Amino acid sequence: MPLRLDSRDPGFAAAFADLVDARREADEDVSRDVTAIIAKVRGKGDAALADYTQRFDGHDLDAGGWKVDRAECEAALATLDPKLREALELAAERIRAYHAAQRPEDRDSIDAAGVRMGARWTAVDAAGLYVPGGRAAYPSSVLMNAIPAKVAGVGRLTMVTPTPKGATNPLVLAAAAIAGVDEVWRVGGAQAIAALAYGTDRIAPVDVIVGPGNAWVAEAKRQLYGVVGIDMVAGPSEIVVVADAANDPAWIAADLLSQAEHDPTSQSILITDDAGFADKVAAEVERQIPNLSTAATAATSWADNGAIVLVGSLDEAAALCDRLAPEHLELAVADPERLFDKVRHAGSVFLGRHTPEAVGDYVAGPNHVLPTGRRARFASGLSVLDFMKRTSFIALDDAAVRAIGPAAVALAEAEGLPAHAASVALRLG
Amino acid sequence: MPLRLDSRDPGFAAAFADLVDARREADEDVSRDVTAIIAKVRGKGDAALADYTQRFDGHDLDAGGWKVDRAECEAALATLDPKLREALELAAERIRAYHAAQRPEDRDSIDAAGVRMGARWTAVDAAGLYVPGGRAAYPSSVLMNAIPAKVAGVGRLTMVTPTPKGATNPLVLAAAAIAGVDEVWRVGGAQAIAALAYGTDRIAPVDVIVGPGNAWVAEAKRQLYGVVGIDMVAGPSEIVVVADAANDPAWIAADLLSQAEHDPTSQSILITDDAGFADKVAAEVERQIPNLSTAATAATSWADNGAIVLVGSLDEAAALCDRLAPEHLELAVADPERLFDKVRHAGSVFLGRHTPEAVGDYVAGPNHVLPTGRRARFASGLSVLDFMKRTSFIALDDAAVRAIGPAAVALAEAEGLPAHAASVALRLG
Repeated sequence: MPLRLDSRDPGFAAAFADLVDARREADEDVSRDVTAIIAKVRGKGDAALADYTQRFDGHDLDAGGWKVDRAECEAALATLDPKLREALELAAERIRAYHAAQRPEDRDSIDAAGVRMGARWTAVDAAGLYVPGGRAAYPSSVLMNAIPAKVAGVGRLTMVTPTPKGATNPLVLAAAAIAGVDEVWRVGGAQAIAALAYGTDRIAPVDVIVGPGNAWVAEAKRQLYGVVGIDMVAGPSEIVVVADAANDPAWIAADLLSQAEHDPTSQSILITDDAGFADKVAAEVERQIPNLSTAATAATSWADNGAIVLVGSLDEAAALCDRLAPEHLELAVADPERLFDKVRHAGSVFLGRHTPEAVGDYVAGPNHVLPTGRRARFASGLSVLDFMKRTSFIALDDAAVRAIGPAAVALAEAEGLPAHAASVALRLG
Repeated sequence: MPLRLDSRDPGFAAAFADLVDARREADEDVSRDVTAIIAKVRGKGDAALADYTQRFDGHDLDAGGWKVDRAECEAALATLDPKLREALELAAERIRAYHAAQRPEDRDSIDAAGVRMGARWTAVDAAGLYVPGGRAAYPSSVLMNAIPAKVAGVGRLTMVTPTPKGATNPLVLAAAAIAGVDEVWRVGGAQAIAALAYGTDRIAPVDVIVGPGNAWVAEAKRQLYGVVGIDMVAGPSEIVVVADAANDPAWIAADLLSQAEHDPTSQSILITDDAGFADKVAAEVERQIPNLSTAATAATSWADNGAIVLVGSLDEAAALCDRLAPEHLELAVADPERLFDKVRHAGSVFLGRHTPEAVGDYVAGPNHVLPTGRRARFASGLSVLDFMKRTSFIALDDAAVRAIGPAAVALAEAEGLPAHAASVALRLG
C-alpha cells in the first residue's frame, strides 16, 4: 500500500518532510571498485577493456568484434517493422526541431566606454553516449541523448554499449542510425566511461559523456567529472500528478504506473483535493497492475515509494510540488496554466488532462533526460547547451583602456597583485 | 628558465604534447579527510562547525560571533578609500550590465501538430558563495561570483569565509555589501561547504555553491556535486599570449607575469613567430620580476611552468591554442579577429594589443571565473545560467494527442513498457 497523507492532519508537516527527504537511491558503495577500473583502463587501455568485457559481458572483443559497424546499424534500421521505424523517425524529427531552437546566440557589442565585449558559443569536438545493455536499453534514450549533440554540432559522437555474449539490440542500433551516431563500441560499465574520458589506442577520447547507466557507470561519470563534462548525477525516476476529481481515474492510474513500471525505486505521487477520487485512482492502480508485463516492478514501486497526498485545496499543490522538485509534474486540472505559474521547481511539466507524461518520453520533442531526486531545484534537463561551451571575449582600444584601466590598476594594487596592475598601467603610458 | 620550444624542431610534436598533458594540479589526497568532515557536519551540524572552526581557524564561533553583520559590511564600505570604492562600484556596475544580458529567454510555441511546448527559466532559491581567507581573498572574486547570482534573481545569497583568529578582510566585506550578499558566516574549509549543502540549525541549506577555495574546499564541492549544483572543478590558472614582434616586450612580459604571480602552479605561455621578440620578452620578464612584491611566486611559476613557443607563422597558433584550451588567451597581433575566428577552445579571449588580461579580472564585465586545465574544451565561465534552471513543458489537447500519441504507443510497446503505452492509448479512446 502506498503512503497516504492528508494536509489537514496534524502530523502532515512532519510526514510530508519525511516523504521529501526519503532517499530512494541505493547506497551501493561501488566507488572503490570504480576507482580501480578507471585506473586500469587509464594505464592499460584496450587490454584492460578486453579483460573487463570478457569478465562482465562474456564478450571476446578481439574475436567477436570491438565495434558495431555503421552497416549493421543501417541494416537494423532497414529491417525494422515499418510502423516502428515511422514512430522513431517522427520522434527524431520532433526532438530535432525542439532542440534546434535551443541553439544559443552569440553576443558582440560595444558599450559607452568603448569596450567591445561578447560571447561565442561552440560545440565540443567529441561526445560519448552511454547506452545500457539489457532491460534499460531504450531506443528513445538514444534519440534523446544523441540528437542534441548532433544539433549542437558535435563533430564525433561515440556510443558505447555492452553487448552481453555479443548480443546487440536492433532497436538501439536503428535509433543510432537515425540519430547519426558516428561510431558504436561494444564496451560497457565503468570501463567504457574510463575509455571515453582518457581514450585508448582504439577509442579516441571525448569531451563530454552523457547517458544513463547502472551504479558503476554513474559513479565512473561522477569520478571523471572535471576530466570531461557530464550530463548530470542521476537517481531513480519520479512523477507527481496533481489531479482534480474531473479526471478519469483510469487515465491517472495509468500515468502513475507509467513511472512505477520503470524500476522498483521509481516514485509516483498523486496530489488531489478529493478523497473519493483518490480512492478511485488507488483502486484503478490495483486493477491495472496485474495486466502489465511489468506488474512486479510496478507493484513494488507503488507499494514502497508511491504516495497519495490529499489537500484541502489544489492551491496548496504548488508549494508541495516545489518541496518535491519532481522530475516529472503532471497538472491534470481545469486551469493547469494557473497552477504552473506558481510552480518553481520541476524538470518537465505536463499541462492538462490530455498530456500524459509518456508523450514526453517519446515524441513530444523536449528532452526526457531530466533532473531527479529533487535536483530540479538547481538542474535542468539535457539540452544542446550540454554539448557546447561559451568563450567570452573583450577588446579594448587605446581610449577604452584609458577609460576603465585606472580602476583595474586600483583594484589590482589593493589585492596585492603588482604585475596585474603593471600590465594595465603600462598601457596607460 | 621556462621551457622553450620551436615548432620547426623535429621533436616539437612530442614536446608540445608533454606541455599539453603536464598536470599542474597537486595530487594532495584529501578525499578521505573531506568525506569525514562532511559526515560530521551533516550529523552534528553547528557543533561540528564550532569544533572545526576553533581547530582550523583559531576562531571561537560562540564567543567571537557566527556571522559578520550586514552593518559590519556596510561599515567596511563606508570607510573604504574613496578611489577604491569608486573602482569597486565601477566594476560592479559593469559586471552587472554584462551579466544582465545573459538572462535567458523563455520559450512557448505551438507547432503544426497542435503540440504546445516550451521552457521556462527560474532562479534557484538560494546560493552559497565561498570566499577563501588569507592571500586569495579577493574583493573582485566576491563581485564576480555574487553579482551573477543576484542578476539571476537568487533569493538568498549566503557567503561563507574563514576568519582566522577572528580577522575579517574589509575589502571583501565591502565587496559583499556592494554585491548585495544577504548573509556572511565566519566558517571556511570543507566544513563550510558541507554546511551550505546540508544546512545546520543556524545556516540554511543552499541549492548551488560557487567560489574558489583550497584543495579541501574543491574536494568538498566535488563530493557534494549532485546534492547541490556547483560552478566547476577548478585547477591552477593559466594564460596563453599570442604576440607578434610589433608589441612592446614590456607589456607582454607584464601580461605573462600577471598570471605567474597568482600561484607557483600558474602557467604563462608565450606563442610568437619572432625569436628576437621572444628573447626580448624573456629578458623583460627577468627584469620585471625583482620589482614585484609577488616576485617569489612569479619567478617559481615562470621557471617551472612557463613556456615560450616559437612558431614559423602565427597561423599555427590557433591549433596550438586549441590543444591547450587555455583559461585566458590574449591575441596581441595586428588582426586579432582573424586569429580568433580559428580558435575553438578558450575560456576568455583578449583581443588586440590594448587588452591586457587583467582588465578582464576586474572591470571589463565578463566573468573572471573560467575553466582551467584544458576544461575550456567542454566548460564555460561562470554565468547567470549557473544560478538558474530550465523547466520544460508540454501541453496537448485532444487533437494533438491523437496526432502524435500513436507513435508514443508504438515505441512504448517496443520498449516493453505497457503502462507507458496505456497512459497514452487511454486518451486515444
